[in-house]
Amino acid sequence: MLTDIVILAAGQGTRMRSGLPKVLQALGGKPMLAHVLATAAELSPRRIHVVTGFGGDAVQAVFPDAQAIWWTQAQQLGTGDALKSALPGLTGADRVLVLYGDVPLLTVATLREFLQQTPASALGLTTASLSAPHGYGRILRDADGQVQGIREHKDCQPDERVIREVNLGMMILPVAPLQGWLQGLSARNAQGEMYLTDVVLAARADGYAVWPFTLVDATEALGVNDPMQLADLERVFQRQQLRALQMQGLRVADPARIDIRGEVTCGQDCWVDPNVLFVGEVHLGDRVRVGSGAILQDARIGDDVEILPYSLIEGARIAAGARIGPFARIRPGTEIGEAAHIGNYVEVKASKIGAGSKANHLSYIGDAEIGTGVNVGAGTITCNYDGANKHRTIIGNDVFIGSDSQLVAPVTVGDGATIGAGSTITKEVPAGGLTLSRSPQRTIPYWQRPRREKK
Amino acid sequence: MLTDIVILAAGQGTRMRSGLPKVLQALGGKPMLAHVLATAAELSPRRIHVVTGFGGDAVQAVFPDAQAIWWTQAQQLGTGDALKSALPGLTGADRVLVLYGDVPLLTVATLREFLQQTPASALGLTTASLSAPHGYGRILRDADGQVQGIREHKDCQPDERVIREVNLGMMILPVAPLQGWLQGLSARNAQGEMYLTDVVLAARADGYAVWPFTLVDATEALGVNDPMQLADLERVFQRQQLRALQMQGLRVADPARIDIRGEVTCGQDCWVDPNVLFVGEVHLGDRVRVGSGAILQDARIGDDVEILPYSLIEGARIAAGARIGPFARIRPGTEIGEAAHIGNYVEVKASKIGAGSKANHLSYIGDAEIGTGVNVGAGTITCNYDGANKHRTIIGNDVFIGSDSQLVAPVTVGDGATIGAGSTITKEVPAGGLTLSRSPQRTIPYWQRPRREKK
Amino acid sequence: MLTDIVILAAGQGTRMRSGLPKVLQALGGKPMLAHVLATAAELSPRRIHVVTGFGGDAVQAVFPDAQAIWWTQAQQLGTGDALKSALPGLTGADRVLVLYGDVPLLTVATLREFLQQTPASALGLTTASLSAPHGYGRILRDADGQVQGIREHKDCQPDERVIREVNLGMMILPVAPLQGWLQGLSARNAQGEMYLTDVVLAARADGYAVWPFTLVDATEALGVNDPMQLADLERVFQRQQLRALQMQGLRVADPARIDIRGEVTCGQDCWVDPNVLFVGEVHLGDRVRVGSGAILQDARIGDDVEILPYSLIEGARIAAGARIGPFARIRPGTEIGEAAHIGNYVEVKASKIGAGSKANHLSYIGDAEIGTGVNVGAGTITCNYDGANKHRTIIGNDVFIGSDSQLVAPVTVGDGATIGAGSTITKEVPAGGLTLSRSPQRTIPYWQRPRREKK
Repeated sequence: MLTDIVILAAGQGTRMRSGLPKVLQALGGKPMLAHVLATAAELSPRRIHVVTGFGGDAVQAVFPDAQAIWWTQAQQLGTGDALKSALPGLTGADRVLVLYGDVPLLTVATLREFLQQTPASALGLTTASLSAPHGYGRILRDADGQVQGIREHKDCQPDERVIREVNLGMMILPVAPLQGWLQGLSARNAQGEMYLTDVVLAARADGYAVWPFTLVDATEALGVNDPMQLADLERVFQRQQLRALQMQGLRVADPARIDIRGEVTCGQDCWVDPNVLFVGEVHLGDRVRVGSGAILQDARIGDDVEILPYSLIEGARIAAGARIGPFARIRPGTEIGEAAHIGNYVEVKASKIGAGSKANHLSYIGDAEIGTGVNVGAGTITCNYDGANKHRTIIGNDVFIGSDSQLVAPVTVGDGATIGAGSTITKEVPAGGLTLSRSPQRTIPYWQRPRREKK
Repeated sequence: MLTDIVILAAGQGTRMRSGLPKVLQALGGKPMLAHVLATAAELSPRRIHVVTGFGGDAVQAVFPDAQAIWWTQAQQLGTGDALKSALPGLTGADRVLVLYGDVPLLTVATLREFLQQTPASALGLTTASLSAPHGYGRILRDADGQVQGIREHKDCQPDERVIREVNLGMMILPVAPLQGWLQGLSARNAQGEMYLTDVVLAARADGYAVWPFTLVDATEALGVNDPMQLADLERVFQRQQLRALQMQGLRVADPARIDIRGEVTCGQDCWVDPNVLFVGEVHLGDRVRVGSGAILQDARIGDDVEILPYSLIEGARIAAGARIGPFARIRPGTEIGEAAHIGNYVEVKASKIGAGSKANHLSYIGDAEIGTGVNVGAGTITCNYDGANKHRTIIGNDVFIGSDSQLVAPVTVGDGATIGAGSTITKEVPAGGLTLSRSPQRTIPYWQRPRREKK
Repeated sequence: MLTDIVILAAGQGTRMRSGLPKVLQALGGKPMLAHVLATAAELSPRRIHVVTGFGGDAVQAVFPDAQAIWWTQAQQLGTGDALKSALPGLTGADRVLVLYGDVPLLTVATLREFLQQTPASALGLTTASLSAPHGYGRILRDADGQVQGIREHKDCQPDERVIREVNLGMMILPVAPLQGWLQGLSARNAQGEMYLTDVVLAARADGYAVWPFTLVDATEALGVNDPMQLADLERVFQRQQLRALQMQGLRVADPARIDIRGEVTCGQDCWVDPNVLFVGEVHLGDRVRVGSGAILQDARIGDDVEILPYSLIEGARIAAGARIGPFARIRPGTEIGEAAHIGNYVEVKASKIGAGSKANHLSYIGDAEIGTGVNVGAGTITCNYDGANKHRTIIGNDVFIGSDSQLVAPVTVGDGATIGAGSTITKEVPAGGLTLSRSPQRTIPYWQRPRREKK
């Protein structure tokens, strides 16, 4: 049976009070629609269709690589009208699964079961029984328990409002009769819109079976209409992601204080302190400890690495046994060698730090290649920028750089060299020996310190 | 009808275990009493009275500008006695609304409705039906459902303890009979105090109507008796404040991890990461992104500004398109120009940074005026303090300051000047050209690095 | 009556997916077993026995000072078999209290009551009535309400699964008949294990009374089987610890965002902002304010100290009235004097800072002794490491150290000395006067700044 998926993504989301189309609002660091598109793709349908409306071009532009057919709903006349926009593309499919761009938590497993359980040529509904059904369309059943229809909340009579069984919105529809059903929709209701839910009436009139599918976990079907719901959904999403990592053994100090915006994998016996944020693709090896408030983005962290509190690591590889932070910032293009130490108030950018080397205090290392066993003194700065171009600093093995030195790139320091504290290094430093630039210390004995001015 | 408001603020709050009078304990960064005073003022009563007891002078001293009349309760003999202290000031009013200095969440809207719904010369009570009424005074009703009286929890019989309708404490009282009612109060009860609630009996005896007003949201009436309740109330208060911003479109990563201690306004499409703290008056323009753990106090942030994680901004204006942090500290009296960058481990104090200028690494900029298009190298320090007085550093446009330079103020750098890395600048730098102070680099080839001492 | 305690600690905890034995998993920064051992010791039993299995040597090695007798369960044949391993050590005791190494929250008060209420030579059970009893062994009672036995969840019939009264696991057993009871245990059940719970049947058969003891707060009996449960228990534990501090007056911005991994004591009117972490032994004096994200480990903080956000303090004493941070790092062996200031991006290690001295910006102070009233300029670095050994820097009183100076240790600076900005100090600085090392400032007027290379 050939199945198409249509994702309805036309809503403006006025209550978001945003310049962005609603389906572009971020969940877990990605647009909500990206989650729905990914879920749809995993179901391997014949085709995926997306119906946009408000800001449609902006939406489509965000997904240049999506294997989807894009349709535009000219006017916002309701969900039934939105689906009508995609009708031409459904020719050749047997049935269509309707999803929503602002309902991003549905799992592949749930939808697969929905598809499997819904009989061929039946109309499939997703439902749940809620203790607080306010706002949802209610499932109306006849005396035999057969689904008669769906009544939107705003159109409900008082005796219908007590019904707890609600429509969650996702549907499976047979394609053959669909055009006729959609043509027959009317906008004579409280919101003046063509409800897709009204096809249930048409389906029953045409003798099609209506099959409700009850979600085990209705939170999967939560949608977003305002910033409060978006923020609440973000926390549900974060808990889901963390749980998957916990099942694999990740230990965290507080499951409510961790954010994952991307893909995290980890080895055995990792520990994550509160308020850590993972972005993009992050891999932790075995026994990695991540301290409070660290932010790791697109990073590969080796075994036994210790990341001390408030360290920011982006676009970097940290080899086994290294120690980073606290208050370190590792920027893109950096490789930190085994057992190397990068300490407090140290920024490293697009540099390679050799095994066992240390830069423990107040330094800026940019566009540098540092060998093994090097000691970078406190306050060392690689002057990689001359106001126009960036230049490289090359430091050999076993070098000792005295505190507060500046290495004016391009410059090379030979193996085993020692640089005296406070030196400005502007030309090649030979291997071995002591290189420095220093003025002699002198004292003016009778000098008087300034006094506080009277104001 | 002339209404006075009396705020009872005499409690010591022994369970707070604090040297501060209870009503001075902070909620959202302000004393609880400040919230109640502000609410009272918005109701525009004839007069506002505050009755203090323990630490009364300290309390009054915190509010030098409050439009309130201060009364002292000599001994803590109960709420009825406390109100008696303010009686002399009520002459001329028709009725009095009684509030509490340790019940700070009541909204103006709720109190306005309470005042409107309570008939002239009736006694108005605030009530709620709680699933856990333990500790509250219960509303006693007669067979006709009329309120008979209020029984304090400690004085309740077992059959009264099951009553779920409770007294929340706020009252409206007619002034004319009030003196008589308060004189008649007795302290013959479990706590040995004159309960204000007992005026209900007197009112009924005198033929006055008793009107209960049920709060829609009883959490508004939560009071504070110990540090646990204060902390819980803080979170309720924070959620209320955040919700108001979310309604206007603010998007946050986690509604449970944000603190607002003052007034925040924001434009469209702002995003706030976890653990941000706002203090005082803060305005965010459109599309501002605030990174994890940032603290903004009394700051005005322009459109499209990006505040990277762990940046502290206080008493500053940041113009559109600027980028701040991570780990930056912007201190009072600072103005950051359009599209300027202030980077990691950079402190800026009482300075003006021109449009497009950059200070990206490890710098201290104090009492400086920096033009446009300036590059402040890593490790640059304005030496603004000579041990006695502060001096200014003036830097023109398009200046390039080499890394690790010191600018010993007062000093001026001309437009387009370049300063060599590691220079100590003690006198005027002319426009254009290269200025530096540097010792020649030399190498001692046969020098031996010290060896580790045996211990 | 002589009581022994046996702690069953043999479980591997496969679902933890960890290389560590389960009882070594950390709760509040200490192995779970450490909590149970501490609780056991406070009950002053005759002897404490620990039965280990998986990784037993590793477990024992963590507790070299524990006053416990260690037993090994050769094969994991169930709790009944585990207790059998310790039987030889129980000779001479009247009864034994059985605890679990992965049930760490039980309080001394609860266990003391359990011991007191259980009659001599009765078999004591710990029970609770749970609304969600799934997974627990159910208490089976006869028509007279007497406990008949315990049925493990997996062995329950449907009509037994609705029973809400459950066995929490902790037991008191008379020693005399215990050997016989344990010998009689069978592994014919769903899990193929010898359940300790089956001794209830043997006890009844032998005419011993079975006394259930109901826990007031069943969360005390929560155990750990996977990383989710461990993380949830961590939060329960943290709330318990915080509550004890709140009862003594500690005020916190958010009770859900604070972590205590050790022992914290505090004076009056302390305030702790969100995301603070306390480790080891920490004492706060009166009126201490701890800013957002600060981490305090083994620290003693004097009265009125202000710790600004993101300050890390470890192994240090901070005297009254000092101000630390933001972004300061105080490392072990440091003493900060009264009213001294340590500011942003300043690291202090194994140093003594005198009263009223200030190091406000971008400095590294290591192995130094600094007098009173000293001003350490921005960017100052003590060069304490020569690549092989650490040396000390001694600074007198009322010294002014200009910005960006390096003090190459070992070196001494006399009282009242002034050091010019940017100086490299390599030999003794006499008292008074101005000492500096500086090259003259010069300008190359027709110098051209490099241009951007075409790429």
